[in-house]
Amino acid sequence: MDFKVIAKDGNARAGVLSTSHGIVLTPQFMPVGTQGTVKAMSPEELKNIGAEIILGNTYHLYLRPGDETIRRLGGLHRFINWPGPILTDSGGFQVYSLSRLRNITDEGVEFQSHIDGSTHFITPERAMEIQHNLGADIIMAFDECVPYPSEYDYTLQSLKRTTRWAKRCRQVHKPDSTQALFGIFQGGVYKDLRRQSLEEIVSIGFDGYATGGLSVGEPKKIMHELIHYTGPMMPEDTPRYLMGIGDLVDVIEAVEAGYDMFDCVMPTRNARNGTLFTSQGRISIKRAEFKEDPSALDPECDCYTCREFSRAYLRHLYLAREILSMRLNTIHNLTFYLRFFRQMRVAIIKGQFQQFKKRWMEILRRNF
Amino acid sequence: MDFKVIAKDGNARAGVLSTSHGIVLTPQFMPVGTQGTVKAMSPEELKNIGAEIILGNTYHLYLRPGDETIRRLGGLHRFINWPGPILTDSGGFQVYSLSRLRNITDEGVEFQSHIDGSTHFITPERAMEIQHNLGADIIMAFDECVPYPSEYDYTLQSLKRTTRWAKRCRQVHKPDSTQALFGIFQGGVYKDLRRQSLEEIVSIGFDGYATGGLSVGEPKKIMHELIHYTGPMMPEDTPRYLMGIGDLVDVIEAVEAGYDMFDCVMPTRNARNGTLFTSQGRISIKRAEFKEDPSALDPECDCYTCREFSRAYLRHLYLAREILSMRLNTIHNLTFYLRFFRQMRVAIIKGQFQQFKKRWMEILRRNF
Repeated sequence: MDFKVIAKDGNARAGVLSTSHGIVLTPQFMPVGTQGTVKAMSPEELKNIGAEIILGNTYHLYLRPGDETIRRLGGLHRFINWPGPILTDSGGFQVYSLSRLRNITDEGVEFQSHIDGSTHFITPERAMEIQHNLGADIIMAFDECVPYPSEYDYTLQSLKRTTRWAKRCRQVHKPDSTQALFGIFQGGVYKDLRRQSLEEIVSIGFDGYATGGLSVGEPKKIMHELIHYTGPMMPEDTPRYLMGIGDLVDVIEAVEAGYDMFDCVMPTRNARNGTLFTSQGRISIKRAEFKEDPSALDPECDCYTCREFSRAYLRHLYLAREILSMRLNTIHNLTFYLRFFRQMRVAIIKGQFQQFKKRWMEILRRNF
Repeated sequence: MDFKVIAKDGNARAGVLSTSHGIVLTPQFMPVGTQGTVKAMSPEELKNIGAEIILGNTYHLYLRPGDETIRRLGGLHRFINWPGPILTDSGGFQVYSLSRLRNITDEGVEFQSHIDGSTHFITPERAMEIQHNLGADIIMAFDECVPYPSEYDYTLQSLKRTTRWAKRCRQVHKPDSTQALFGIFQGGVYKDLRRQSLEEIVSIGFDGYATGGLSVGEPKKIMHELIHYTGPMMPEDTPRYLMGIGDLVDVIEAVEAGYDMFDCVMPTRNARNGTLFTSQGRISIKRAEFKEDPSALDPECDCYTCREFSRAYLRHLYLAREILSMRLNTIHNLTFYLRFFRQMRVAIIKGQFQQFKKRWMEILRRNF
């Protein structure tokens, strides 16, 4: 993996990330392919809308169909037929958010599957092995995600464990691998702990760094402060990944702070719930005002949905709970997100990121 | 509308049906677009797999979004963005199969919506008006579908009502319309009543004729007898439509008997339930034997699903209840059906329909 920052505007950066499955221009949004598919989309459609890299969830793929199965079938790229770059998370976040009866020790985490209740034990070494079997271009170190609120002391003890786990991940995943390994730092809402965690993780040495444990319930103001505190502190010459954050206001703040990579279920999940992002703001497609509206969802959008269908039809499909509703809505929301990120990148290269921020913050405050 | 029989092999016929939205080669299968979309498919995909004509359900579209709404939005073709031919059924069958509290009088049918329980009254005149508002290329006369079993006397009384209703449909839908109107004959399982009903309907004069009220629970043997009895009895120079029948054994019998047009939810509904049709037989994709099967679903199929994905992946998507599962399965099953119908047509033109029948009946008996 290779990463180059090609332009800066304040702390905001435009970069080029080269992986063994292709190039990713940053800042970039990674659509979430939880169970080996970005929900409602085909790989062909993802290519068509300009997705450059997608995310796979280690926790889900480990449970079903199993990492050994995917390895025997030639790895995740071949299994899901996505030829571009893939990043897999470590599974840590899902273990804490989805599974039951977690028992965290220094050795690892015991948890029960949310699918069938079966008991599993994941260590940092096993997390690496699973991600080796999946074979993504970028894999993540196994970490403990601290909930909000957490006491200072627990957060400190936890970040030390995350450091010990990160070392074990690094030990079994050598730097000469074709898979890049990113370290995740924690530290809750405590700035000094964020700094300490980042320093410990950076001292181990990874191909990129990720901020974990944000957007877990803390107030937006605190989140934005931490984003602006951590972003510029992270190493300059490697990618900076803000995990799980996709609200556009948060994204703008984070790109301003120098973050490069993002993932979030927001555009896809909202799409399935009929909430659509447009150049004029957020729309709930089920609203009665669209019943006979023949116009395009977003006249400024060139996606298949906006080119070919009316708001009236999209409303009908949503009310009728048709699969095509989720498809067309997802195509649109992802197109909107990917374009938004491209526009941020252009603004950075042109030195106009503040204008971009000002214009969009107004739209977002008013209509989102 | 124009229809020409271009080849015959026994009673089986190959024809060309010209509508104001394009040409349909017969025998032809019409994918069912119940609520203004063939479930899980986009119009683009339907074109790509070679669908020539689709069916819309008058009952569903009348209830939601409403025929007036569709009319104001430019008609069904524009509303759903399908530029090819469309046939709408009369709504009769759904009134009997889906709604509650039916009250059938000579004037029409009172029923309760399956969506919200609201009360509706449909007359033959209203059924025509709804279908005028929808604007399909082929529309169907309003009929009463007799359940199985039904007494001879009731079946006779009912077919007489269907005749009276057909006359009223013809009266409000003039022969010079750009929309072709097909008459439906009934008669249950009684051959003499089938003959009587057909004669009465034909004497009114329609652009095509349809057999209604089959595949409603009667034994296969009786259905096949009636298919072979009715097919050759129907007018030669207009399309013969066997409503709602899509089981491939039944289809072969019906094409042999001279039927031209078919519709059925079987390929699409089965797809969503993980039952897939292949050149070697029927497959339940959830079976454990496919867990690590890297091969194509059907090596003889050239659809997107079979070109790009493995049985192992299709099984995974199905078990994970992913939307992409329903999409890929539907693409395959519809491709299979459309190819099956093209092959029947070629066999008829070559005078080899009996060989086609023999070969497929063996596969169907063994593996379907």
